Formats: sequence, structure tokens, C-alpha cells
Amino acid sequence: MVSEFYTTRRIEFPDTDMAGIVHFSRFFVFMEAAEHEFLRSLGTSVSTEWNGNKIGWPRLAASCDYVSPARFEDVLDIRLTVVRKGGKSMTYGFEFTRDETEIARGMLRSVCCICNPGEAIRSMPIPDFIADQIQEAPEQIEEGVNGAES
Amino acid sequence: MVSEFYTTRRIEFPDTDMAGIVHFSRFFVFMEAAEHEFLRSLGTSVSTEWNGNKIGWPRLAASCDYVSPARFEDVLDIRLTVVRKGGKSMTYGFEFTRDETEIARGMLRSVCCICNPGEAIRSMPIPDFIADQIQEAPEQIEEGVNGAES
Amino acid sequence: MVSEFYTTRRIEFPDTDMAGIVHFSRFFVFMEAAEHEFLRSLGTSVSTEWNGNKIGWPRLAASCDYVSPARFEDVLDIRLTVVRKGGKSMTYGFEFTRDETEIARGMLRSVCCICNPGEAIRSMPIPDFIADQIQEAPEQIEEGVNGAES
Amino acid sequence: MVSEFYTTRRIEFPDTDMAGIVHFSRFFVFMEAAEHEFLRSLGTSVSTEWNGNKIGWPRLAASCDYVSPARFEDVLDIRLTVVRKGGKSMTYGFEFTRDETEIARGMLRSVCCICNPGEAIRSMPIPDFIADQIQEAPEQIEEGVNGAES
Repeated sequence: MVSEFYTTRRIEFPDTDMAGIVHFSRFFVFMEAAEHEFLRSLGTSVSTEWNGNKIGWPRLAASCDYVSPARFEDVLDIRLTVVRKGGKSMTYGFEFTRDETEIARGMLRSVCCICNPGEAIRSMPIPDFIADQIQEAPEQIEEGVNGAES
Repeated sequence: MVSEFYTTRRIEFPDTDMAGIVHFSRFFVFMEAAEHEFLRSLGTSVSTEWNGNKIGWPRLAASCDYVSPARFEDVLDIRLTVVRKGGKSMTYGFEFTRDETEIARGMLRSVCCICNPGEAIRSMPIPDFIADQIQEAPEQIEEGVNGAES
Repeated sequence: MVSEFYTTRRIEFPDTDMAGIVHFSRFFVFMEAAEHEFLRSLGTSVSTEWNGNKIGWPRLAASCDYVSPARFEDVLDIRLTVVRKGGKSMTYGFEFTRDETEIARGMLRSVCCICNPGEAIRSMPIPDFIADQIQEAPEQIEEGVNGAES
Repeated sequence: MVSEFYTTRRIEFPDTDMAGIVHFSRFFVFMEAAEHEFLRSLGTSVSTEWNGNKIGWPRLAASCDYVSPARFEDVLDIRLTVVRKGGKSMTYGFEFTRDETEIARGMLRSVCCICNPGEAIRSMPIPDFIADQIQEAPEQIEEGVNGAES
């Protein structure tokens, strides 16, 4: 039973914008790529078949708090944590750091669905071959709303 | 004093993914484009000069809840609402609908900064020529966390 | 019978990169969006049904020559020209200008295909309801390779 | 003196579109990432400083011919070849394959420039520390225009 996963990502040129830093929307792409790499590490894929059905994971929610900018060619460390394993949904937390500097932290929540072509998408319990490998992390990444308002 | 803004966006081919629907990360691009169009409607830009300084709006936080999928060539109605006008930060809420169907709702929080090249970025009070045109919406879009877990 | 089409596009923040200009890959997205708008102007879509088959237009080739940089919030004028109407393929030329300044020119070549789910993609003659509306432009946009080498 | 470079790239979810395959515009991002990895392998970067000047490589031209579709989680082999080393410009060819299957081949042409903030961009001879490490490949990737018209 695993509850966390580590990977890295190098910032590419089109990840940046005219402010010279990584565009905020790209962190959602980075989170997703880490989630998919996590699923591959469990021997499955975000897009798989099971009992003759096509299984997918549509998003319910996504969020990110931005702490420090990331720049071209930075190599970010990404820590994925299983925040919540529901009967049908999964919530992942993500921490982005560069060396010891916190860059961002985020969250993705997805629901397990049967996504057969030509049928309405419908939610389903997470199949055992996935659920049995994953457990919630004992220590959670805070899903805090960024407090830097003034 | 304005507190909301309406625009539309047509879904383009690369907004979609192999699931046949709009990729979740694209909603953050759509929110930003609506924010920038709102600022243009006030006679300014997200990237402007003021008192010899370059003003920018780095992101503090972004989030989105996904309700129904959007598809290629859909024209989404977008409603921007000023959720909070702080001394230095702005929080916008966004509602995406197609006809009467709710598609998604999201939030962007940004902080007003001096972003001169070669200097450290530092926050600053929102200049009057922007602040004086904007007020918080009386009725807020809920920033609710998506409750569809099970 | 039409052989050209005009539209515009405003540059958005994530179209730019840390060089402060539009990332070169974005021009291919802009060309495609103009092509799709052209097809809508003919009463059809790049993704349509015909005789019970799903019709699509996979790419054969794409190219772009870059003349002058484009920047955030620029509004580019785009001229699409029908360079070649084959039996099964279409070649479009594109000219991007801002005021009188040439920004870029490009080319997309696509082949008309039956793209039914679960079947191999196979090319087909362009259906008459499309072919009968389009003719090759008498004066062609040069598909010149950029000569600025030294 | 090197004239070619090999790398790989795994297809990510937002690289795909509703046709279920990689969007054609993404190959330009993949080519660029391979070019930048090649430059890092030479101990430099596409964004570097030299003699107190900021050096960049704006694009002159880009093209791609598409042979077979690529799909989610495919790992593509990418071969970069130095097609032409000019005094101020570089032309790279790219071949994408999956196992023995040809997926696409493309070309990028860039010009070496001084890109100091606040100054007009101007071309310059490729600095020796880069030029001295690179030579043209003896056997060239064909820059053929895709011949699949009919």
C-alpha cells in the first residue's frame, strides 16, 4: 500500500510566459503528469480497460497555491500524496520544490468512471486492482488557501 | 464602479483531449483571458506601466470545480465577479455555462506587484486608477470545494 | 466558390514565452483555428458526419516562416488562402500581419478521412458539399523557405 | 564535433486531442525540447549570456511532415541532426519514431541573436564556444514536402 510518490520535471521554454516565469496554468499539467506517472508505477494507467469497460478519471476539482516562481530549465521536485481515497474518488496533493525552496502546492480530485464510447459517462467504485495498492497518507499536505492577501 | 463582467469563449480543437472533452487545465487559461479582457474594458492591461514602474499581477492561488464537460466548438458564457478587492490583491470568481448548463466555476487570486526588469518583484497597493473602478460584488460566487466525493 | 477567408486573433498571455514574444508553436494553433472558422463559414465543421461516417482531416504537413515577432495583446490579421484543392487533400496558406507589418506566413495540408471509432482511419474524396464551395486561389501565397540564412 | 543527438519523449494527456492522437502542433514543442536538450549536452543553453550580452535563438522557420499518429503514453524516439550550420543560423532536422514506425519528421531553423532587454534584437555570428562543437551531418534528413496529395 503506497501513499506517496516522487518525481521531477524540467521546465521547458513554452512553459514560461512574458513575465519570465512558469505560467500558472502549467502547474496543473505538471500535477496531472505526476499523477499519471504514479498510476504507471502501480502497473496501470489513467486510461485503461477493466471488465470490458473503458475506465477514466474525469476531474472534479483542481487547485494550486503559488509560493515562489519557477523558471526555464529549473528541475522541480514533485511530491504526490494520497490525501483522500474515497469509494469512487481520489484526491491527490502535490508539493513542488526546487532545492529547499517551496514553489507551489496543489490538489487534484478525480472520480473513477466508465467512459465507454457512445455511452453516458457514469461513476463507479475504484476497481480493487487500483484501490488495494493505495492508502491515504498519514500526514496530509495542507490544502490551505493562500493567505497572502492584504 | 464595476463588480462583474461577461464574455464568451469558443472551444478550439487543441483545448480538447483524447477523452473528447476540454482538458481541465484549459479552464485556467480561459479564466485568465476573461480577467485580461475585463482589465482592458477598464482601459488598462494586466501588463502596464505606472509612475515609471512595470506593474504585473503574479498569481497567489487558482482553483476550479468541474460540473459538466465542455466540447469542441461549444461557446461558453463566462461571468467574472469581483469576489474580494484587497489593498494589494484581487480575487475573481468565474462561472462557465453553456446555455443553461453549468460547466465549471473557478477562482483566481493575484497580487499587484512592481515587476521591473532586473529588480526583485515586490507587492504594492493597487493603483487608484484601477482600484477606483472596481468594487466587490454584493452577491458572491461560492468558492465551494466540490462536494461530489463518495 | 470561395478561395480565401479573413479573421483576426488577439494574442493571449500564455501565447507568449520568456523572450517576451509569441512562442513559434502557437502560430500552428492560430492557423488551425482560422481553418476551422473558415469551415464553419461554409456551414460545416472540421469534425462532422456524412453518410453515417465521421469525417476528419488529419494533418499531412505544416510549416511556418517567421518574419517579425508578435506580442501580448497584439491583434493579428489572418488571411487564409486555398493553395491547392486535391481530390482528397486540402492545402491552405496563411498570412499573419499586424497593421501593415508582416508577422509570419504558413501552410497546413490535410487529408479528408473517415475516422469512425474502432475502425482504421482511411482517406476519402472530399465530399461534394465541401468541395463544391471551395476553389483554389488564383494568386498563391508563396510557400517560400525563409531565406534569412547567412 | 557532434552532428546528431538522440532523446525520447513520452506523450502526455494534454498532448492529445479529441481525435485520440497527438495534436500536430505539439511536435514543434517536442522538436524544441530536443534542441534545448542538445544544447545542454554541449554545456550551454538556448538562453545564455556571452560577453555581457544575452544570446537567444529566434525562429526563422519550422516545418513538420506527419506520417503516422502518436498516442497517449507512447514513448517516441527523437533523432536530431544538424542539417546546416550557417555563420549566424542553425537548421536542425528531427525524426520521430516509435519502435520501427516512422511518426513524423520536421525541421527548425533559428538565427543567433543578441537579445538584451530594452534593445532591438540583432543577429550575430554563432559564438565559437557553440560553433566549434557542432558540424553538419554528412547524411541529411530529407526536408521533403509530404507527397501524399492526391
